[in-house]
Amino acid sequence: MSSRFLVAAASVLGLSLAAMPAAPAKAEEGMWTFDNFPIQTVNDLYGTRIDQAWLDKVRGAAVRINGCSASLVSGQGLVLTNHHCVISCVNDLSDAQNDYVKNGWMPATREEERQCPGQTAEILTDIVDVTDRVLAAGEGLEGAAFVQARGAVQQAIQTENCNNDPKLTCQVISFYRGGRYALYKFRKYDDVRLAFAPEFQAAFFGGDPDNFNFPRYALDAGFLRLYENGRPVSTPNHLTWNANAPTEGEPVFVAGNPGSTSRLLTVSQLERLRDQTMPINLIQSSELRGRLQQYSFTSEEAGRISVDPIFGLENSFKVFYGQEQTLTDAAFMATKREQEAELRARVAADPALAQRIGDPWGDLTRIEAQAADLFLPYRQLEASAGQRSALYGFARTIVRASKERAKPVAERRAGYSDADLATLGRRLATVAPIETDLEQIYLTFWLSKTREYLTVDNADVQRLLGRESPEALASRLVEGTRLADPARRAELLAMTPEQLAASGDPLIEFVLRNDDVAQAVRASWEATVSGPTARAAEKVAQARFAAFGDNQYPDATFSLRLSYGQVKGWTYRGTEVPAFTYMGGLYERATGSQPFLLAEQFAAREADVNKQTVYDFVSTNDIIGGNSGSPVINARGEVIGAAFDGNIHSLGGAFGYDGELNRTVTVSTAAITEALRNVYRQPRLLEELGVE
Amino acid sequence: MSSRFLVAAASVLGLSLAAMPAAPAKAEEGMWTFDNFPIQTVNDLYGTRIDQAWLDKVRGAAVRINGCSASLVSGQGLVLTNHHCVISCVNDLSDAQNDYVKNGWMPATREEERQCPGQTAEILTDIVDVTDRVLAAGEGLEGAAFVQARGAVQQAIQTENCNNDPKLTCQVISFYRGGRYALYKFRKYDDVRLAFAPEFQAAFFGGDPDNFNFPRYALDAGFLRLYENGRPVSTPNHLTWNANAPTEGEPVFVAGNPGSTSRLLTVSQLERLRDQTMPINLIQSSELRGRLQQYSFTSEEAGRISVDPIFGLENSFKVFYGQEQTLTDAAFMATKREQEAELRARVAADPALAQRIGDPWGDLTRIEAQAADLFLPYRQLEASAGQRSALYGFARTIVRASKERAKPVAERRAGYSDADLATLGRRLATVAPIETDLEQIYLTFWLSKTREYLTVDNADVQRLLGRESPEALASRLVEGTRLADPARRAELLAMTPEQLAASGDPLIEFVLRNDDVAQAVRASWEATVSGPTARAAEKVAQARFAAFGDNQYPDATFSLRLSYGQVKGWTYRGTEVPAFTYMGGLYERATGSQPFLLAEQFAAREADVNKQTVYDFVSTNDIIGGNSGSPVINARGEVIGAAFDGNIHSLGGAFGYDGELNRTVTVSTAAITEALRNVYRQPRLLEELGVE
Repeated sequence: MSSRFLVAAASVLGLSLAAMPAAPAKAEEGMWTFDNFPIQTVNDLYGTRIDQAWLDKVRGAAVRINGCSASLVSGQGLVLTNHHCVISCVNDLSDAQNDYVKNGWMPATREEERQCPGQTAEILTDIVDVTDRVLAAGEGLEGAAFVQARGAVQQAIQTENCNNDPKLTCQVISFYRGGRYALYKFRKYDDVRLAFAPEFQAAFFGGDPDNFNFPRYALDAGFLRLYENGRPVSTPNHLTWNANAPTEGEPVFVAGNPGSTSRLLTVSQLERLRDQTMPINLIQSSELRGRLQQYSFTSEEAGRISVDPIFGLENSFKVFYGQEQTLTDAAFMATKREQEAELRARVAADPALAQRIGDPWGDLTRIEAQAADLFLPYRQLEASAGQRSALYGFARTIVRASKERAKPVAERRAGYSDADLATLGRRLATVAPIETDLEQIYLTFWLSKTREYLTVDNADVQRLLGRESPEALASRLVEGTRLADPARRAELLAMTPEQLAASGDPLIEFVLRNDDVAQAVRASWEATVSGPTARAAEKVAQARFAAFGDNQYPDATFSLRLSYGQVKGWTYRGTEVPAFTYMGGLYERATGSQPFLLAEQFAAREADVNKQTVYDFVSTNDIIGGNSGSPVINARGEVIGAAFDGNIHSLGGAFGYDGELNRTVTVSTAAITEALRNVYRQPRLLEELGVE
Repeated sequence: MSSRFLVAAASVLGLSLAAMPAAPAKAEEGMWTFDNFPIQTVNDLYGTRIDQAWLDKVRGAAVRINGCSASLVSGQGLVLTNHHCVISCVNDLSDAQNDYVKNGWMPATREEERQCPGQTAEILTDIVDVTDRVLAAGEGLEGAAFVQARGAVQQAIQTENCNNDPKLTCQVISFYRGGRYALYKFRKYDDVRLAFAPEFQAAFFGGDPDNFNFPRYALDAGFLRLYENGRPVSTPNHLTWNANAPTEGEPVFVAGNPGSTSRLLTVSQLERLRDQTMPINLIQSSELRGRLQQYSFTSEEAGRISVDPIFGLENSFKVFYGQEQTLTDAAFMATKREQEAELRARVAADPALAQRIGDPWGDLTRIEAQAADLFLPYRQLEASAGQRSALYGFARTIVRASKERAKPVAERRAGYSDADLATLGRRLATVAPIETDLEQIYLTFWLSKTREYLTVDNADVQRLLGRESPEALASRLVEGTRLADPARRAELLAMTPEQLAASGDPLIEFVLRNDDVAQAVRASWEATVSGPTARAAEKVAQARFAAFGDNQYPDATFSLRLSYGQVKGWTYRGTEVPAFTYMGGLYERATGSQPFLLAEQFAAREADVNKQTVYDFVSTNDIIGGNSGSPVINARGEVIGAAFDGNIHSLGGAFGYDGELNRTVTVSTAAITEALRNVYRQPRLLEELGVE
């Protein structure tokens, strides 16, 4: 289940442009690293007594899981996160007889907790600055040699520090757009079990209409447990569970892994995003959404298999929509322009600095003009090729692996070392159901939009389609390929390009025929756009360091951050949105129709529920996709909720923080406690959480 | 069949903002009225000998038909237009046994030509300036009295001049945004018969992928014939048929009825269009397109009934897309900004003028800010309410007519006089098939998007949906209403609001329950946005007259215009697009799959076709939706083609003309002649056209 505040979909666009903010952070702005948290500012602002011990404790209780955030909440490895972060596990544990998605996962004893396939959990143990070593590695080098040297030193640091120990993760992370590098070292757990999940309908109540909105009435919470050697891990450094809701105005902290922000993009970058990238994303995701929605009405089975892809698409649509609202806000762009002008003026005023920085803004304007020309072919033929088709993804992976394996190791593209190829093999061997109908929709849509945007007269389109219609070609490929079979994938992965060409698989043949062009388009994009952009952006970041100093937070990079804020509603266009919802509101909002249907247990136990319990609440914390499941913590370091969403205005947080409007949406520990006690009757868990 | 260069869909947005250009017209720019055509400029430019007699002849041969343009091409009332302008007639004449859409309409004798239901044709006979009288009527008045007086004088002029003669049409048309008014008097024909239509697949070849693109291979042509008293009308003043294609660079003229342009919008108006109106149009039409597309795959019948709505939607999507490309073009907007600054400077430099004009630009900036707040409710609850649902339209018409009829005549809203109500009655009595599945899709989509954009917590949304889901509510309304029955519509139309409330029709009940809010939203929009906009825009137009004088063409208003240009290809992003296609190219482009399937007769007669015949061609003429079917005329006044489309760049023509890129797309008389001779074998028509 892809959704909400998971790491955002923007990565498909190649937009992982980490950056530092345009100017010193405003109050409550910032996704701060734990080694640069503005303790004094916060204590002055709120009268709190945050100190290094507080930070260390929170850091040690924060957990990074696949695409989400989480936290330790008991001494026996119990981990709180969002339901939408564990839904794929719930789904994996379900079978034809047991629908845990619908009914929830509530094992009667700890022994019945079951492992989530593929789930890992990581707890940050060390942060080591490695900036000097990384920067030294690139000195005096250019082009490919530069990229190679920088990559090699990071790999070396990781290997030296973790030494391939399966219990450790070492990751060198670039902060401030290459301004700083740090080794993040984690204790890693790969036996993670599902301890509790409520009914899907309780977690998902409100569906897409409520997603990124507030008021909300969602129990978007679930529990995992860390195991080692078949036993729960002892975790004395956990957050204390506080079953009481916060009060309005109370300072709160969110510790988690925001995925990606782009607050340092220059004006010319933002403009192309606004005028080209976002509109195409919005238009195409809307049309695909319409196709899936209509398909979902054709049968009960079609409805069932579409729920997840539709919600995923709606979620990313809304992310794009919210971002575009910000980019088309004239005042927002005017501020960006002013900030850029100010920074450029500061650089210009210092001859030595100007000499060192050059004119990356002008470079980026030129790069963006070229990007505008290359964007549609790059998007359609390479970056979004095959749309969401799993079969197409398999075919392309196999074809590219085969081509790269045929080369000497030193000449292979990044990502195709022997170790990488082994990982690929494991990934392709994973059994995952292939939904033929959806595959057909995805491929038809992709082929049809590629023809539409590149036009019928484009030679690459003609090579793609030959004389077939998008529908007929998609149908032939999906029906003819055997790539749905993991065993066949393994066979194909072992083949040479010549063997693949003779394999008789129409999808493999299709990818082989079109792959040279796709790779050429990618190479051209990298040479003309992404490569030069990275170099220019690094210059912009250096200018910023010179102008504004170190009291800055870096852009989000799915690494552990801490944000501070307070519980607070907001007012927009005259409408006041209060900070809290209450459990009684769930029953008032329920209509009896999806997505406002009461979960069965919530309906059955209505009389037992304390309707005055705070359900969800909003706060001013600066978070973004990837923060899903993050613990929301009070000044005493106790957990009081799990962040699961932002409001619609928070989506513009990709480009800047607006304290008036941006809000984090959290499910309260008060509501989780109430549900465990009076809806789901889980005394075992309540006891573990220390709630009597 | 809605499509291509019919009058554009933008009217649903209330954007019929006629205007004159921002600055003196560039060469080949302009949709000129026949009483202000720049004869000397054109003759100087091309060395042609256009004179008043030439203009009079062309004017007398130009024909306006429903939503399209056309021309007389024989002395026996034969009219050339586009196939897509007669497709609804072809459809009406078809039945279960005879599919003239698929097979074409080719009567063996003139006697077998059959009347097109509801089709009229108008030929402009007089243009009379009535500016002074119209302006005098409003003098000294304000608000509703002003609007009433202006409307009354125009109605009076029309009545005086046409005296309800059914053979005449009198229409007072506002030009230059109220700067000029003219009476356009037409000879009207209401017995219009279908003389010839090719196979749909020949006319429509290339479908949406080729729509608004070039090269093209479409025989988008058809012939009508004017009848009176059961006999063909004698039309000595017709254009001579020239069966030879033009040469590259040859000057060509297009006489027709461009529907609507908005070249005078101020920058603040263009910006909201770019940032709000267009994105929502693009997003919503894309999602609906996806729904219809996927629905069309569910059965053969679903495919059949979806063809027309899908193509209509795709056509308007592409119009919006092309317009947005222009609006997001930084250079285009910079030019608009410069022009606006220059005009404002000229006004400011003349104290008396400044006093008279005031600051309409500032007014419009404030109005647009308010429009941004009101837009979504106005769009969802009123302007686009019910989406394309015919049943919803019936219900709303009936409810509003009933409410207005209950008032004294003097207090009724415009459009609800007794005569208007009688017209309404006739319109509702028309038998038209209602496609239940499409109705369900439209209503579901509308309700679902209204909830999405206004949010679940909006009181108006709650009133609309009650506790039902969009799907369930749409289903209940569509299944329960009897509005598909014309007799029932007539009964309901006669009812008082109280009787309607008791009628038991769920759709009537639904509209009754929500109509007060919808009308209030409309009233608020008119008071805050459209009313003040009209007054401000009139001031801008006056400023322009003062600054630039009379050598200007007015914005398009679906009235007869003449544009001049030359046969010429174009170059975009390095790709050169030649001016001509040839009939042989059709056979090369045909893939055997839709929409690139050869028409049956074209396939059967391939050996007979002269493949060197020019098929379609492009020219620099400045045209827009509504020009479909316009005669393309050479300097000798002979017809050499029928304009049927523009290229993708021409869509920005809504806001400005770009001679480098804007192109008119025409099907040549050479190709029509060749098809009549060697594909469809129509010696009777060829003889009438004077081709041996």
